[in-house]
Amino acid sequence: MRGSGPLSSPSSTRSWWGWGTTDQALEGDALAGLGALLAERFDVEVAAPVDPVDPSTIDVPAPRVSPPGALRDLASDDPVDRLRHGHGAAFREIVRALHGDVPRIPDLVVRPGTAADVARVLDWCADAGVACVPWGGGTSVVGGVTPPPQPCVSLDLDQLDRVREIDAVSGHALIEGGATGPAIERQLGDHGLTLRHFPQSWEFSTLGGWIATRAGGHFATGPTHIDDLVAAVTAETPAGRWASRRLPASGAGPSPDRWLLGSEGTLGVITEAWLRVQPRPRSRVQASVRFATFDAGLAAVRALVRDGLRPANCRLLDPVEAALAGAAPQDATSTLLLLGFEAPERDLTAEADLAIKLARDHGGEVVDGPTVRRGDATGASEGDAGAWRQAFLQAPYLRDAIARLGGLAETFETATTWDRAGELVATLRDTATRVATEVCGGALVAVRTTHAYPDGVAPYLTVIAPGLRDAGQGVPRGRAQAAAWDEVKTAVSEAIDAAGATITHHHAVGRDHRRWYDRQRPEPFARALEAARTELDPARILNPGILTGPRSDEGGMT
Amino acid sequence: MRGSGPLSSPSSTRSWWGWGTTDQALEGDALAGLGALLAERFDVEVAAPVDPVDPSTIDVPAPRVSPPGALRDLASDDPVDRLRHGHGAAFREIVRALHGDVPRIPDLVVRPGTAADVARVLDWCADAGVACVPWGGGTSVVGGVTPPPQPCVSLDLDQLDRVREIDAVSGHALIEGGATGPAIERQLGDHGLTLRHFPQSWEFSTLGGWIATRAGGHFATGPTHIDDLVAAVTAETPAGRWASRRLPASGAGPSPDRWLLGSEGTLGVITEAWLRVQPRPRSRVQASVRFATFDAGLAAVRALVRDGLRPANCRLLDPVEAALAGAAPQDATSTLLLLGFEAPERDLTAEADLAIKLARDHGGEVVDGPTVRRGDATGASEGDAGAWRQAFLQAPYLRDAIARLGGLAETFETATTWDRAGELVATLRDTATRVATEVCGGALVAVRTTHAYPDGVAPYLTVIAPGLRDAGQGVPRGRAQAAAWDEVKTAVSEAIDAAGATITHHHAVGRDHRRWYDRQRPEPFARALEAARTELDPARILNPGILTGPRSDEGGMT
Repeated sequence: MRGSGPLSSPSSTRSWWGWGTTDQALEGDALAGLGALLAERFDVEVAAPVDPVDPSTIDVPAPRVSPPGALRDLASDDPVDRLRHGHGAAFREIVRALHGDVPRIPDLVVRPGTAADVARVLDWCADAGVACVPWGGGTSVVGGVTPPPQPCVSLDLDQLDRVREIDAVSGHALIEGGATGPAIERQLGDHGLTLRHFPQSWEFSTLGGWIATRAGGHFATGPTHIDDLVAAVTAETPAGRWASRRLPASGAGPSPDRWLLGSEGTLGVITEAWLRVQPRPRSRVQASVRFATFDAGLAAVRALVRDGLRPANCRLLDPVEAALAGAAPQDATSTLLLLGFEAPERDLTAEADLAIKLARDHGGEVVDGPTVRRGDATGASEGDAGAWRQAFLQAPYLRDAIARLGGLAETFETATTWDRAGELVATLRDTATRVATEVCGGALVAVRTTHAYPDGVAPYLTVIAPGLRDAGQGVPRGRAQAAAWDEVKTAVSEAIDAAGATITHHHAVGRDHRRWYDRQRPEPFARALEAARTELDPARILNPGILTGPRSDEGGMT
Repeated sequence: MRGSGPLSSPSSTRSWWGWGTTDQALEGDALAGLGALLAERFDVEVAAPVDPVDPSTIDVPAPRVSPPGALRDLASDDPVDRLRHGHGAAFREIVRALHGDVPRIPDLVVRPGTAADVARVLDWCADAGVACVPWGGGTSVVGGVTPPPQPCVSLDLDQLDRVREIDAVSGHALIEGGATGPAIERQLGDHGLTLRHFPQSWEFSTLGGWIATRAGGHFATGPTHIDDLVAAVTAETPAGRWASRRLPASGAGPSPDRWLLGSEGTLGVITEAWLRVQPRPRSRVQASVRFATFDAGLAAVRALVRDGLRPANCRLLDPVEAALAGAAPQDATSTLLLLGFEAPERDLTAEADLAIKLARDHGGEVVDGPTVRRGDATGASEGDAGAWRQAFLQAPYLRDAIARLGGLAETFETATTWDRAGELVATLRDTATRVATEVCGGALVAVRTTHAYPDGVAPYLTVIAPGLRDAGQGVPRGRAQAAAWDEVKTAVSEAIDAAGATITHHHAVGRDHRRWYDRQRPEPFARALEAARTELDPARILNPGILTGPRSDEGGMT
């Protein structure tokens, strides 16, 4: 068995308990400074930061299962490797892992080198009654990769990381399921192409994970969800290979690809897919506009998408969000709209001018731009939007630091129709503020929109709270933080559900959203999906407890 | 029981055997003129036109089933009503019906007035083991509404034809499943809104049918498929009501709506759906451009969609198609590109100019426009595009007339990636010409593209042939025409499949495409869909023989 894996990368070491790589984590003065900031902002005492437990000191039970000889070389029983695969990146998972508390540890981590290896692993799991949790980057923030209670392998696809074929005429690339964002862009870049799918987890999450969870891209409008970029998918199922035909469009029955999109590892393991790629954009226009109220900004965003404009960036930040992201001063009171258009070649001035005109019609005041840029870009953008993008990728590290300082940090995302958007934002902001203040003695709630549609919008909330008003005697600190998280998570999720909005727009269901998902999806659909799972996977080895069937205890977190 | 239904409309009578309404059918001089044209074009003798059999003279067997009292008022056993529901609008169906040959006649036509009625009908069917074929407009050209051999009701949703609710802020309308294109546009028009989904069958087909078959809209690019316009769907299944939440987007598991889209009546009966509607367009630009070759035109279309342009109209017509449609003289040798941009308000000049520039870069020569129009339009357009649109809606009537003249008329549609587009078009044109000439002694094959994507295109072929080279002794004329159709259909479909293209881009699978569909869809997907059907519909009453499960004899047509 191997004891290696992504933990041993020399230049940047993956955190075993938290987000990303350890060299990006806030430490020393930066961490202390954040503590001081929280103390000042909330007028509370903030404890000294906790250092993560050394994983080699954690007692990890011996594996309950052993693979047959042919698979032995693919399997790792290294305790730290297994600990890292015992949780995803949900707040309650990382805050407990930080304290060495990982309630579910997979018996083995298995790293297939080929699709045929995946099929062999599934065969063994089905025969031996071993659960199989497909693992991409382990970045699920909703408990989507947490092991179930039974004997279990974590199927880590990190060896399947290649761009295997390119059709430059059609703009298609065949990409393996375990390829991360940077691996994909690096390989496509050699051909002058880009996928331009940038979820916040982009540096670590994988193509297969994006498809399995219907990841939302970084673009605010137009084809941005991974759903829109998929031209064909191949998955290994316990009933054999599922491979769709590579096509620009088809009307032949329900789309097989749409069955796998969002299946969260319950129907099969996505080994490769044909994706729609494009030339690197060489034409760009950026601007930022401020509004007196969030509602005025929402009205402007609605107007411009309704008239057919499709800006790549169209993010509305409330004053708290703008300040958090460094795109506005701390005492700002305005809502900020970040606008960006991009295209391979065509001139975008007219589109940007119209967007600015519509924003002005709704009370907007231009604070920056429009700035026209032509030629290749590295992907970095400048001005307010550049500051925002940098903060965007760093946010999960900030969250980890807050966890170490005994606080709470969580994000909520949803989508609703325009008729209910303003009211939903107000309700969620109020609910999050009220409950987090009750539980933690103070709360910072920042709101932005991530995606805009002709018929609605996706609001996104960040909740930061300093500590626990009443941690209770004898409750370990990590568990107390997780319990506080649970109260806030439940209250906001109930409000989302009561408003008829979706329990998730792009974070997926996992174990954490399952309660509300069960109310949201049509009951006959759930029965049909359950029957489909049983047909393909009669031993029910694939991600038990996810989407349908008996709910487990949410990854041992209750 | 009622003997009424849509047959009794005073102003325009629906044809019982062929397309649309009898007042639009070619008769008298027009029909004779078409015969003379075919004779001249193919240098053959064309027989005198057949008059359709009077349906009241056809021997229709008594119904094998009788509904319970509560459903009796919804059911019609009128023989002509039943005959009309015994076939869709596939060529082989209408050419045989014309001669009074309808091999499958539903025992009853049932017209529910509410979704609750639909549920009651399904309950009865499940209890009594009666098959149920959901019927929208009966416009399927692929045998999608042909009854199976067993006792069967045709569930005609024509009473569910209302726009029930409008959310003008989000641009959503709640529309019943049986509403036709004109009924929808008339009701939305009262609110200044439009769905702008115009399949060729638009006058007669219904919302539920569009969703069940993944209908392709009339727009060439952008959100045009009904898939893109659906915000929520409600269906009645034998296992209860399936209703999704109305949302602009969601990442909560696989999309339930995408399971119903393309389900062809096998999972449930679509009773209503929330659709994305929009203000009537007030800004338009049109142009037409000619190219020396079809391949040059394809390259131009590719260039403009790849650069992010999304023209509403972007149809490439080969010389035969252009002449057929009246958009070019009979002796034209150029390929014609019809371009049209539209938007609610915004100025489209820059987009149209760029499209023309890109067309010129690929050897195009502007023959008309760009013509800018502002303000309300009736939907009719002018110039070459207007002539084309009129011919588009009339084409099925031309097909019926050719059937009466003993000839053959069929259309083929598919989609493929750009790398294979030119070769696929050439192969299909050659195959259709060769086989139709062998079978019929001559053939006119016209090619156009219906939809363009950044990664591919949807070619569409119209095949017209004069008669049968060798009808065979004693073979009834309608059956001989159907057999000829079968030879051409099989040869072209085999060529589509061999090229890795889709067996259908927007005509659906039905009974006629099932053979090739079975090769195209992933095998585990077919098993999963079959399991889902059995779970929801254990008595397997919904559209037996469609999509999965044992194939029947293709509607008694073999």
